[in-house]
Amino acid sequence: MPVAGELVTGLKCRLCGKLYPKEALNFCTDDFGPLEVAYDYEAVGRTFTRESIASRPKNMWRYHELLPIDGEPTVGKHVGCTPLIRADRLAKALGVAELYIKNDAVNHPSLSFKDRVVAVALSKAVELGFQTVGCASTGNLAGSVAANAAAAGLDAYVLIPDGLEQGKILGATIYGAKVIAIEGNYDHVNRLCSQIAFRYGWGFVNVNLRPFYAEGSKTMGFEIAEDLGWRAPEHVVAPMAGGSLIGKLHKAFHELDRLGLMNGPVRTKMFGAQAAGCNPISNTVKTGANKVKPVRNPDTIAKSLAIGDPADGFFASKLIRDTGGWSEDVDDEAIVEAMQLLAETEGVWAETAGGVTVAVARKLIEQGKIDRDGSTVLCITGNGLKTQEALADRLARPVVIKPTMEAFDALVESYGAFAEVGAIAAGA
Amino acid sequence: MPVAGELVTGLKCRLCGKLYPKEALNFCTDDFGPLEVAYDYEAVGRTFTRESIASRPKNMWRYHELLPIDGEPTVGKHVGCTPLIRADRLAKALGVAELYIKNDAVNHPSLSFKDRVVAVALSKAVELGFQTVGCASTGNLAGSVAANAAAAGLDAYVLIPDGLEQGKILGATIYGAKVIAIEGNYDHVNRLCSQIAFRYGWGFVNVNLRPFYAEGSKTMGFEIAEDLGWRAPEHVVAPMAGGSLIGKLHKAFHELDRLGLMNGPVRTKMFGAQAAGCNPISNTVKTGANKVKPVRNPDTIAKSLAIGDPADGFFASKLIRDTGGWSEDVDDEAIVEAMQLLAETEGVWAETAGGVTVAVARKLIEQGKIDRDGSTVLCITGNGLKTQEALADRLARPVVIKPTMEAFDALVESYGAFAEVGAIAAGA
Repeated sequence: MPVAGELVTGLKCRLCGKLYPKEALNFCTDDFGPLEVAYDYEAVGRTFTRESIASRPKNMWRYHELLPIDGEPTVGKHVGCTPLIRADRLAKALGVAELYIKNDAVNHPSLSFKDRVVAVALSKAVELGFQTVGCASTGNLAGSVAANAAAAGLDAYVLIPDGLEQGKILGATIYGAKVIAIEGNYDHVNRLCSQIAFRYGWGFVNVNLRPFYAEGSKTMGFEIAEDLGWRAPEHVVAPMAGGSLIGKLHKAFHELDRLGLMNGPVRTKMFGAQAAGCNPISNTVKTGANKVKPVRNPDTIAKSLAIGDPADGFFASKLIRDTGGWSEDVDDEAIVEAMQLLAETEGVWAETAGGVTVAVARKLIEQGKIDRDGSTVLCITGNGLKTQEALADRLARPVVIKPTMEAFDALVESYGAFAEVGAIAAGA
Repeated sequence: MPVAGELVTGLKCRLCGKLYPKEALNFCTDDFGPLEVAYDYEAVGRTFTRESIASRPKNMWRYHELLPIDGEPTVGKHVGCTPLIRADRLAKALGVAELYIKNDAVNHPSLSFKDRVVAVALSKAVELGFQTVGCASTGNLAGSVAANAAAAGLDAYVLIPDGLEQGKILGATIYGAKVIAIEGNYDHVNRLCSQIAFRYGWGFVNVNLRPFYAEGSKTMGFEIAEDLGWRAPEHVVAPMAGGSLIGKLHKAFHELDRLGLMNGPVRTKMFGAQAAGCNPISNTVKTGANKVKPVRNPDTIAKSLAIGDPADGFFASKLIRDTGGWSEDVDDEAIVEAMQLLAETEGVWAETAGGVTVAVARKLIEQGKIDRDGSTVLCITGNGLKTQEALADRLARPVVIKPTMEAFDALVESYGAFAEVGAIAAGA
């Protein structure tokens, strides 16, 4: 595919607009505003057409003109193009007409949407000459950096808060990454990683490579639009941790619109989902505050969303208000019930963050914030196998019987037993 | 897509060739031989071309003319088209020139190749009017039947041997399936399911729906050939439980050849991988026996392969010998080491069965049974998140430090600590 190098004009401060070269920088030296990748959209438009995209392999790189690497991708070549599921059974349960699940629970290699951002960040890291990369992670990013770095032959340092789920810890150590748990929460980990990236000159995907990294999330939006026939949905519900994803989904729809690829106008309302135990952004939206008040001690089973001081919290809350969307948060009980509802209606086993998204969507529908007649896309960002702890105590063990028809017949006859099995499955 | 109904002529006994109608039957009433789907290849050839296939969505149904359902698929519409990874780092470690990983660890929805067979079996179950479906499973099939039945609104009964991994049990109960553990091993479960299917008239995917079910595995072979540029590899290494997959991979290459879609001849040697703790098929191959001697008490961490009396064991061992391939088995230690090698070189975290495949491939390469210069495809069939128990004790916990640069610097300086972290990751 054509080299996209000349399509990226540089990095631009989101506050003052000052331009910087496309290097490992993440904030403006004048006002400390975050930097964002700037593109030459006129040049992009020359090759970025529906026809050219349709002719490319089914992975996230089919949108390469709007991804900030200069040459061919060298990391994460197979990432993306996950299923957009028409979710009629869940739609019926939630009482809406047109519902879709964007299922990044099966994104590969590491089963979360983080493979999208890591594919871009590590491909860029290779271009910039980094041999050692790292990240501050609440779990999914740890596995994605570890897996993709291993495949690329890069050394990976993964820093996580102490006490993450076993699946997420094993899911990083198995790849040979140096996994270091920090006594404290994600914000402690993140601050330390900023110092490490500066001191050691390593490429931290969500620190000094963050502007490039964050652009990878746009591919989730590009895929949603392409799979909907180059249309944007009326509502998108996305989970919020650092608050970056929801903004990039919105940016994706508007970039496609700007380039003339969309059928009809883009009027998508953005809805943000958080856990009640860590709701700095939803709290900002609901109170109408002008700045995000950090949550000092996050406490939720949705550990992948447990970021008390979200880097993009301000921009996310502003975007949600500007688009006419809203934000809500839900407790652990509602999270688990929603995980089960999603699994039982659509056969999708999401991690706790997916339960947050579905539970918040249900709440927003009941509040009338999400129009029951409009089209809605729920973004599922991680896999349920990674957060088994949240269910292990709530789903009872299976009934155990002897290997005989008598035993099975007795089980079938005992409606009580069935009610129980059914109830277990239904989470009662 | 065109209805494929008239392309299936019926079911044919693999022993005597007697023809049966395409109904829920699985064995010949004359000699109890297994039944296999028969196609009208001339009719298939009219629409099954490289061009027509290339124009279809990227999922297993792009090969629908060679899948035994009469109408449109109603279950598992997004299944398949998993990555075929050029595995140069693993190739270097194993000392071969051209190596590929067919990564069904990320097949969806349930993260194993079983979604392929279940998509066909349940789409057929819907056509035949079954509302209640079931399976006998060693784990992956349980999750796939539960997930796909949930999405289709079917009632699912999943029978498993007692003592499976938590990830596989939760991975079935979460979808609302009725999960029943049987005191005994898989062979006890399988015998009971045969009685249940007969007594209750339910659609058991790997019992009375088995002929349709088994055909789904061919799509793994179709995808390998298409991704290799319509070529068959010189060697394929596949894990063996019941022994069906290896035969269907071979059948897929030869069906494509028969229809004139392949570049060059199909001379693929088939290699079967088993665990030393349950090796009925590899033992048959290695001893040259004429019949498969069942393993009474399987004992291996590769629980998904722990079938002591494999339904297709005879056909698998004959195929392996006829193609000039071979079979081996490996112990638990080798399985875990191979899981780590695959993860550290290619960023693929496979379940224990994947460790069996990689460890057996290494053994066969060292034995000279697999030619170091030929092209080899390793079939990875399930995800590592499902068998965490096999690693939990072997991968030590991450190093825990305070959130300070002093603590991090000390860790970096202490090569001992690093050697330890490295050693942990390297499985030493």
